[in-house]
Amino acid sequence: MNKVEELILKRGEIKSGNILKVDSFLNHQIEIDALEAIADAFAEYFSQKDINKILTIESSGIAIAVALAQRLKLPVVFAKKAESLNLDAERYSTRVYSFTKQKEYNVQVSKKYLCADDKVLIVDDFLALGSAAKGLIELCNQAGALVEGIGIVIEKAFQNGGKELRVQGYDVLSLAMIERFNEDGSVSFCSR
Amino acid sequence: MNKVEELILKRGEIKSGNILKVDSFLNHQIEIDALEAIADAFAEYFSQKDINKILTIESSGIAIAVALAQRLKLPVVFAKKAESLNLDAERYSTRVYSFTKQKEYNVQVSKKYLCADDKVLIVDDFLALGSAAKGLIELCNQAGALVEGIGIVIEKAFQNGGKELRVQGYDVLSLAMIERFNEDGSVSFCSR
Repeated sequence: MNKVEELILKRGEIKSGNILKVDSFLNHQIEIDALEAIADAFAEYFSQKDINKILTIESSGIAIAVALAQRLKLPVVFAKKAESLNLDAERYSTRVYSFTKQKEYNVQVSKKYLCADDKVLIVDDFLALGSAAKGLIELCNQAGALVEGIGIVIEKAFQNGGKELRVQGYDVLSLAMIERFNEDGSVSFCSR
Repeated sequence: MNKVEELILKRGEIKSGNILKVDSFLNHQIEIDALEAIADAFAEYFSQKDINKILTIESSGIAIAVALAQRLKLPVVFAKKAESLNLDAERYSTRVYSFTKQKEYNVQVSKKYLCADDKVLIVDDFLALGSAAKGLIELCNQAGALVEGIGIVIEKAFQNGGKELRVQGYDVLSLAMIERFNEDGSVSFCSR
């Protein structure tokens, strides 16, 4: 069992609707030991790849991307969800459905910060149906950037986002892969 | 001139309505050298204080808070703006007006992650009228937590948020203090 799986068992909370809350160490409170373990695992796996940029989506992906970027010495770009006076008019844009917020929203990146020369590592906290990851891939496609890998902290493997991405040929590393939430409140991980 | 002032002069963009965009190194793309310089400056100033938690607000504050938390070995809590199925029912809440988004929104922290024992360092990217900082202070007040300091990357000193907070006795460190935006597109910083 790795560090992320241990954290999920010790400190995750399972809610109805197959929602796993990791607010105690990642998604509301961020514990530095947990974050560094996550970043170390991604850095180890992806450090041999030819990557020049880490792409994530606000908000929960930012901490992960920053901790990893410090290790790989790369810039981070975070896609924005909300309209802002500040966002450039020239931007790539797509729609993403949020499982936890139960709504669809725009996801956008300025054309200045994603381009055809980029070799991108996408990182995010959760992968379930894969809507956010697919949205970020779509932004890379619009820019002509290459997606060199996808790093996910927690994959709900019983939903099919991760499977679909792997079938399409993406190199997806999920640090914890949840096979199922059990009726007794426990979590089963996929065997490796 | 310090590193943040240099970055603003070289890479900031001034827009109408006294908006300064720092999307190239902090608010959309995050450059690790810039982030580490910011975190080093906060760590140097605040490391002697008795602080046990860093509080910020999603999204742009998260990267700053995480880089600083790694140096001070402290947890980060980021206040949430949007409604989510995931947020605890038991929470502190207040309203904040966003200058760049021109709307008011709820800012919330779960009661689990902010309490009367906490000695809090608040960090954020910008301080203008001080709405976000005052909102975070209000959340600390609701929890009975002490605000030990406030670290801001860029203060628009010609608006009065920083002045008001200092008059109230808060220890506010702003790494760059903008005196005015000039008609020729240049930026004047406050003398130290």
